[in-house]
Amino acid sequence: MRVLVPFDARRPKTRLSPVLSESERHAFAEGLLADVLAALAETPQEPTVLATAPVEVSVSVEIDERPLTQAVNAALSEADGPVAVVMADLGLVAPAALERLFDAGRVADVAIAPGIGGGTNALVVDHPDFRVDYHGVSYRDHRERARELGATVETVDSYRLSVDIDDPGDLPELLLHGKGEATAWLREAGFAITGAGERRIELERSETESGP
Amino acid sequence: MRVLVPFDARRPKTRLSPVLSESERHAFAEGLLADVLAALAETPQEPTVLATAPVEVSVSVEIDERPLTQAVNAALSEADGPVAVVMADLGLVAPAALERLFDAGRVADVAIAPGIGGGTNALVVDHPDFRVDYHGVSYRDHRERARELGATVETVDSYRLSVDIDDPGDLPELLLHGKGEATAWLREAGFAITGAGERRIELERSETESGP
Repeated sequence: MRVLVPFDARRPKTRLSPVLSESERHAFAEGLLADVLAALAETPQEPTVLATAPVEVSVSVEIDERPLTQAVNAALSEADGPVAVVMADLGLVAPAALERLFDAGRVADVAIAPGIGGGTNALVVDHPDFRVDYHGVSYRDHRERARELGATVETVDSYRLSVDIDDPGDLPELLLHGKGEATAWLREAGFAITGAGERRIELERSETESGP
Repeated sequence: MRVLVPFDARRPKTRLSPVLSESERHAFAEGLLADVLAALAETPQEPTVLATAPVEVSVSVEIDERPLTQAVNAALSEADGPVAVVMADLGLVAPAALERLFDAGRVADVAIAPGIGGGTNALVVDHPDFRVDYHGVSYRDHRERARELGATVETVDSYRLSVDIDDPGDLPELLLHGKGEATAWLREAGFAITGAGERRIELERSETESGP
């Protein structure tokens, strides 16, 4: 199975700009990518990073400067067999969740791990005509597209695949459940869970002498 | 396995008061409870609703007027074997996710399905001294308590168990993935997904002639 990890190496994690500077966003995004690759390394699959610019990782990198949807669709159109697409910001991803994704991809034409908020955080496509569109409520749109094609769909029920670290409200999940580089980076940058008002978590950033 | 579904029949879903009236919150909460009971009905377990006041359901009901934590701990202290506690507002729960919870409860002293935001949405306790505390970041606290007791812990990785329908921001998840009574109620009450700004969903409530 071809496994792609799309990564925006140019302007990563812009929605974290309220809490992280540009250089911090680069460092944090690279931590998330490293965590995703580390989880993939514990599966039998060998991923390729599909990046908008060169990035230093231990796996192969293909450069495609186009936006996410176009770059992934180009890869799908060239594919000769199943293709998995795993987002680079799934900071909680674990090998077992990825195995469930790959297993679902073996039994269905399209396997989708939905993200909180209606995104498509990971999918496996094994249908020649299926194309992605990551804009809008892509989980719903991808199901609809599969239905139009008569393609079978499996949904992967994973909390770890459902959390993409996209905006400040996602950071508490990482602090609570994460164990990788991005989580360590975040702690070193001064972020911590301070408690919970009602049942939601409050996030606090303390002063650090210098960034991590 | 004893399976408890705690339900606040008096003041349910107060955090939805920005978008639902009191009588609507009662109707919606009963829809969520019905959906949880319907999912449990497709497992081999027979649940008991642990309610603060009488409620009409098709399973047995035990009345305990005390707050959630105290009522659950009273049940745990009287237990003679494993006890599962499944929240009544898990509107996306499905039998397969519950089976995974029960399976985890069979191999560990404490099995926990974390909620988004650090809550404990479902757990199975098979340890005489473990007690719950649903206040604050209970997922973290329950893990810590298990560690102190030397109890083994399994975490259940399920998106469907991670989503509790607690505040207005949770409603889109239900509209996207739900299939039960609560989802139907919500649609009839005029709620719909209108699209997505960036990648998050926007929720809209249209005027309806009368409430559902």
